[in-house]
Amino acid sequence: MQSYEVKAIGRVASSLTDAASAPRQPDEGAPEAVLIFDPEVLEGLRTLRAGDDIILITWLDRARRDVLSVHPRGDTTRPREGVFSTRSPHRPNPIGLHRVQIIDMQGPRLRVAQLEALDGTPIIDIKPVLSADVSER
Amino acid sequence: MQSYEVKAIGRVASSLTDAASAPRQPDEGAPEAVLIFDPEVLEGLRTLRAGDDIILITWLDRARRDVLSVHPRGDTTRPREGVFSTRSPHRPNPIGLHRVQIIDMQGPRLRVAQLEALDGTPIIDIKPVLSADVSER
Repeated sequence: MQSYEVKAIGRVASSLTDAASAPRQPDEGAPEAVLIFDPEVLEGLRTLRAGDDIILITWLDRARRDVLSVHPRGDTTRPREGVFSTRSPHRPNPIGLHRVQIIDMQGPRLRVAQLEALDGTPIIDIKPVLSADVSER
Repeated sequence: MQSYEVKAIGRVASSLTDAASAPRQPDEGAPEAVLIFDPEVLEGLRTLRAGDDIILITWLDRARRDVLSVHPRGDTTRPREGVFSTRSPHRPNPIGLHRVQIIDMQGPRLRVAQLEALDGTPIIDIKPVLSADVSER
């Protein structure tokens, strides 16, 4: 498999430090967090605003990359599913997708609501939410 | 900035070969495409089904990585925006997010509707669509 170099453009600062006890989804008690960006990418953030909904993309650096099927939510009474049918962090490329709202911004620091990522998690991209992402089909 | 190794787990096969003329969004005339996965990850696909909506994550290997602001949709009459407020492929980590529906599956080949990615684009992950992604706020 060909590979590419993905760079950490920032890090998550969070009170969550333990993967085993962290919420699995944002609506399961995830706390506020601060996204701290490398000053080199500040220009890319300049039109983001408090109140914006964004898709935060992270590199889940504590996940396993050799896992292709899992019991959903770690519940061994449920049949195994392929990782691409789940949001398990364990997968060949441990990419995290997190829809979050910006609470406020101060230069390269963005405070966001309800983020389930662990403290120190590398940030690799941010995208706006588009209507095509959110339409029910 | 620390970096990590992201692996191509498959490739897009598409009639789209030219970035300049390709649709910018799926609802702007994007064609069907076939996702061809590396046999090594087949186990990860086993619970995907025709009809499923998925989030396809790609590595936009023909994008520029040194761009931090752009005119939206390349329209120079519009003011520049930070790339993290846009879906421009040009950004520090050229990650593509594509919400697509599976039309059918044959082993490691998934046919999907309306994909704007170019032929040969590396695939790096697939995730299911969650209700939290699609809720309007």
